[in-house]
Amino acid sequence: MARKWKAKGAEAKALADPMSKIVLQLQSSLIQSDARGILCGCSVLLAAEEEQADLLGRAYFGDRVINAEKDKRWFQLDMEEAFFLCYSLKCLRIVGEDKRPKDVQELWQYMKSKKAAFPDFYKAYSHLRLKNWVVRPGFKYGVDFVAYRHHPNLVHSDYAVLVSSEGDCEANGRLRVWSDIHGTLRLCLGVVKALLVLSISKNGHDAASPSCLENYTVDERTVSRWVPEQGREDDTSADVESQGSQ
Amino acid sequence: MARKWKAKGAEAKALADPMSKIVLQLQSSLIQSDARGILCGCSVLLAAEEEQADLLGRAYFGDRVINAEKDKRWFQLDMEEAFFLCYSLKCLRIVGEDKRPKDVQELWQYMKSKKAAFPDFYKAYSHLRLKNWVVRPGFKYGVDFVAYRHHPNLVHSDYAVLVSSEGDCEANGRLRVWSDIHGTLRLCLGVVKALLVLSISKNGHDAASPSCLENYTVDERTVSRWVPEQGREDDTSADVESQGSQ
Repeated sequence: MARKWKAKGAEAKALADPMSKIVLQLQSSLIQSDARGILCGCSVLLAAEEEQADLLGRAYFGDRVINAEKDKRWFQLDMEEAFFLCYSLKCLRIVGEDKRPKDVQELWQYMKSKKAAFPDFYKAYSHLRLKNWVVRPGFKYGVDFVAYRHHPNLVHSDYAVLVSSEGDCEANGRLRVWSDIHGTLRLCLGVVKALLVLSISKNGHDAASPSCLENYTVDERTVSRWVPEQGREDDTSADVESQGSQ
Repeated sequence: MARKWKAKGAEAKALADPMSKIVLQLQSSLIQSDARGILCGCSVLLAAEEEQADLLGRAYFGDRVINAEKDKRWFQLDMEEAFFLCYSLKCLRIVGEDKRPKDVQELWQYMKSKKAAFPDFYKAYSHLRLKNWVVRPGFKYGVDFVAYRHHPNLVHSDYAVLVSSEGDCEANGRLRVWSDIHGTLRLCLGVVKALLVLSISKNGHDAASPSCLENYTVDERTVSRWVPEQGREDDTSADVESQGSQ
């Protein structure tokens, strides 16, 4: 599937300003400001100054929350996003509603209690983010995430992502019947995305602490319709070509 | 959702020629010709004379199979379609590849062996067909069936149908996670259908023989997105109306 840039010059703009660089800038800005997010249900709220807000927006972490404060911009981060900044990039501290900072182990337990499949979802999210993909929630399309090669202002998303786990029935339960596979592929076709299934293998490790993530492996598979015409040997097209050159 | 007729005059045509009448004509035609279908894997092949072929087409049972015979037209029926003509309308006999007619009990066992969820799917199919809906396979849309109020030449399909059963995990396993529900609704929206979920309750009866179907009950539910604006109390629209009349 060819990448679809949203405007003329978008590709050059993305190349000149790679996502890896933006995320590095965001990381160092958050470290310098000793940023703290506030855990609030299934999200983390983060206040940012203008420059930091710009970086959060360009790296596309969280969603802006409309607020009346002039000098602070608030962002609502999903659990995967907040945990990524906290655990993988080590640039965000997260405090509970009692304002006491939570350590990584506490956060891990909290997020698992809110979402049973959190370890698998986080592994999938961080797997793509560490490769400098921009990863966003996929509920609009009925998938777990969507992944963009750069900011969605510049490029359409390449992949609709489903997370599949060992003992899938409990964790996610997608793509187990043909009708689900057909429907998901038809939907992906309609919104010009490829379906990427990330299968998480725990390799016998449990999810007691986030360090287990190092032992998890991720298997990447894209799923697409098999079009018989494209699956045949090239006899016909060769004939057409040779006829054309006669 | 408003019914969408395909052309001007289609509605009048459908009203003048109701599906119940077409199916009755087909039934008596098949009985008169002592029709026999040949069981072949997961389908039943049926040869029809011109007039009968016309009725099969208008009632939309099966798909035409292209063949070279001039005076016979072959139709490939799905298991649900064939069993409906055989068991519910009692107008078709089905023979095995050994040309020996199969009784209803043998057929039931055979179809269950080919498709574990056959009893539930058949209950859903016959439930809609007996109300004179035209029911067709839904795999193009990633659902179990699509249901039309009349022949699809005249009208777009109203419903994408999913069959849900007790102990759903084995039988079908759809709509168990939010991402599946979101995706299916998004797809239905795209193809202008409403999602109809038929829940089959066995009421403690097993599926040992087709007579158990009489004890099954079908619960019909349409599922649609909740749009907050439409769910609010009518204060705003009342205001607008009263302002408009001032």
